[in-house]
Amino acid sequence: MTQKDATQTFPDKLLSGYQRFMQGRYADERDRYRDLAEAGQKPHTLIVACCDSRAAPETVFNSGPGELFVVRNVANLVPPYAPDGEYHSTSAALEFAVQSLRIRDIVVMGHGRCGGISAALDPGLKPLSPGDFIGRWMGLLKPVAAELQNSSLLTTAERQTALERISIRHSIENLRSFPCISILEEQKKLRIHGAWFDISTGELWVMDWKTGDFIRPDH
Amino acid sequence: MTQKDATQTFPDKLLSGYQRFMQGRYADERDRYRDLAEAGQKPHTLIVACCDSRAAPETVFNSGPGELFVVRNVANLVPPYAPDGEYHSTSAALEFAVQSLRIRDIVVMGHGRCGGISAALDPGLKPLSPGDFIGRWMGLLKPVAAELQNSSLLTTAERQTALERISIRHSIENLRSFPCISILEEQKKLRIHGAWFDISTGELWVMDWKTGDFIRPDH
Amino acid sequence: MTQKDATQTFPDKLLSGYQRFMQGRYADERDRYRDLAEAGQKPHTLIVACCDSRAAPETVFNSGPGELFVVRNVANLVPPYAPDGEYHSTSAALEFAVQSLRIRDIVVMGHGRCGGISAALDPGLKPLSPGDFIGRWMGLLKPVAAELQNSSLLTTAERQTALERISIRHSIENLRSFPCISILEEQKKLRIHGAWFDISTGELWVMDWKTGDFIRPDH
Amino acid sequence: MTQKDATQTFPDKLLSGYQRFMQGRYADERDRYRDLAEAGQKPHTLIVACCDSRAAPETVFNSGPGELFVVRNVANLVPPYAPDGEYHSTSAALEFAVQSLRIRDIVVMGHGRCGGISAALDPGLKPLSPGDFIGRWMGLLKPVAAELQNSSLLTTAERQTALERISIRHSIENLRSFPCISILEEQKKLRIHGAWFDISTGELWVMDWKTGDFIRPDH
Repeated sequence: MTQKDATQTFPDKLLSGYQRFMQGRYADERDRYRDLAEAGQKPHTLIVACCDSRAAPETVFNSGPGELFVVRNVANLVPPYAPDGEYHSTSAALEFAVQSLRIRDIVVMGHGRCGGISAALDPGLKPLSPGDFIGRWMGLLKPVAAELQNSSLLTTAERQTALERISIRHSIENLRSFPCISILEEQKKLRIHGAWFDISTGELWVMDWKTGDFIRPDH
Repeated sequence: MTQKDATQTFPDKLLSGYQRFMQGRYADERDRYRDLAEAGQKPHTLIVACCDSRAAPETVFNSGPGELFVVRNVANLVPPYAPDGEYHSTSAALEFAVQSLRIRDIVVMGHGRCGGISAALDPGLKPLSPGDFIGRWMGLLKPVAAELQNSSLLTTAERQTALERISIRHSIENLRSFPCISILEEQKKLRIHGAWFDISTGELWVMDWKTGDFIRPDH
Repeated sequence: MTQKDATQTFPDKLLSGYQRFMQGRYADERDRYRDLAEAGQKPHTLIVACCDSRAAPETVFNSGPGELFVVRNVANLVPPYAPDGEYHSTSAALEFAVQSLRIRDIVVMGHGRCGGISAALDPGLKPLSPGDFIGRWMGLLKPVAAELQNSSLLTTAERQTALERISIRHSIENLRSFPCISILEEQKKLRIHGAWFDISTGELWVMDWKTGDFIRPDH
Repeated sequence: MTQKDATQTFPDKLLSGYQRFMQGRYADERDRYRDLAEAGQKPHTLIVACCDSRAAPETVFNSGPGELFVVRNVANLVPPYAPDGEYHSTSAALEFAVQSLRIRDIVVMGHGRCGGISAALDPGLKPLSPGDFIGRWMGLLKPVAAELQNSSLLTTAERQTALERISIRHSIENLRSFPCISILEEQKKLRIHGAWFDISTGELWVMDWKTGDFIRPDH
């Protein structure tokens, strides 16, 4: 039977999780889902986050449907503005969030133990496949990673955390290279934030917008 | 105070959501987070999902930390394999998930009322900004969108649902253009799935891997 | 014996079913049948349905005697208004229902897995007999079927469902080509509806009269 | 809301009847519906019946899903074989049932108090609309109706019943004008029957295939 086949193939964990969703959150928020479907989404925040399975923004910020517009790529990078006629996944999402959804806040959210950042710090990293897509993608950090790679004073973990945070500031700079973002930010119609999530302790560190330092808001 | 500044600027909704996370899920799963930090992530599934605020995979599949490696871009597209030396956000995430994390299942997950798909169906769509990033990105669907754009027989909603599903099949074809994916799939070490989430009704439709049809596993 | 002959020839299943009817529904509704015989029928709704054995309107709508005036032809088609002096089975039934019985609602009711629609989508369909009556009859859908026949993006099942629904809208347009119908509809003395029945799941999808979309009223 | 609109417009009686169907027959026969959807229909009998709301074949023969392939037109007429390239609703259904579904029994089922037959007996009948579709359709009976119209010996009710039965025999003759039917009947692969249902008493009268008389099988 056609239906049996498809059901048997689809991962059991996802199907059982979906059943919990339907009996739980969806049952509780049915009206909200209907309204969001009819009226369209109006998320308050765009989050640029990492693909990492331990740092989902909806989980860390306990967010419900309709709240967060979320781009996720390896190491939560924002590439620089490049109107070169090529397709740019992240830039397209930024443009859509800012120009079409008119979101008011953008958060670049990094996290500890990021595999992409590790790769960027490894001078001898071999391509994962002949296409070397991770190598190219993390190459976006080459200008800032090179200095740390050569540092003998920082421990491995310190280098890692340092680049995780440097990378957030770097992505925020790149965000501002998009005219549609920098103009709105100057007009105070859009705010840009940085955040770093410590997977182990659960701590959220927020970037100070003046100094670029990461601090814990509850400390 | 520096700390106040950062705290005052960071969106209140995110901070209060984070407090709920810490008192709820994190408190309950503290050990799991620690283990995941120490041992590294071992997600069972890669999900290519949309940025849409109403269709977060962790929510729909009720997934906990460590389970899903998630790429999110506008309209959950997978571009074709293009080892051209440029950076490719989605391809980098695929490569990392398959080659480094050795995930066993990939799900391309679309959803109803997708704004990116709407844009792809609008023949008169104007660039959202001079960079026209959405236009370029949704241009990945141009070959399949053109036929539907010209259809006067389908309603607007029918065209939308049709392209949302066609696009999932198209992305799955593109997935298979990556040698590292198609080889593992042939060796039965990797399985590829499609899913479509109806925001309004909460229904999950799963793609039949033989026919490409979307069916509800519980029907 | 003459009587034996006729009894022996007539299908057993029908005779035994008729006995159940007499002992069941007829025994329960004897007075209603008498009244309906004496006073004449006053059905509230005309249904244009398919001949398909799995989609009888009285079954799907759990209707009793006297409620539904039912036209059934292959694929529940309404031909366009053609006062050409030829005999037109469906047009005669429409005229009788609207002008003589003064019904107030018309439902064009399609269904999934319709064999007539399959035939309309098969570009290489050979005549079933030299008269090619199915070919001619389904030719009423030629203008709308051609576009779908050429689609390589939709699966076979998707093309089928699409044409089943397009055909309902097409028949509703044809209904409105009858002056006696369009005038009454404008005067709000007659309402026209579309419905699509999923044989497999039992779901009834109702046409939204504004958009033409099919939705489930209980969702 | 779109969904509300469509639901409010669709006749309440049908929606509540559909709910009874889903909770009753569909719930009881879910597997049968699924099998019928997957495997396709295999009805044992084609019934040519009248649109009349008091004479639904599924009701009179207490038939379940998948049993009866049903054509319904005004006065249950079968037109003569006319391979003229025009569309013929009833002939298309016959062809489909016999050639594609390979049904083994055909029943032409008339009934008492038939409005179409009344119209055929009324020499002064005015067109119901300028198209005069009922006039044209019942004109198929003109050759047999004329004699009864002029009879002053039969009462009105006798003329009505007489034509109802004559018409069944006439339709059976027309059935046999279709080569695909007469050939199969000669090969004993197909049987043709007549039946007449008395709405008032619930009696079923079956046609004797040798004499053409209508008799009650249980008498």
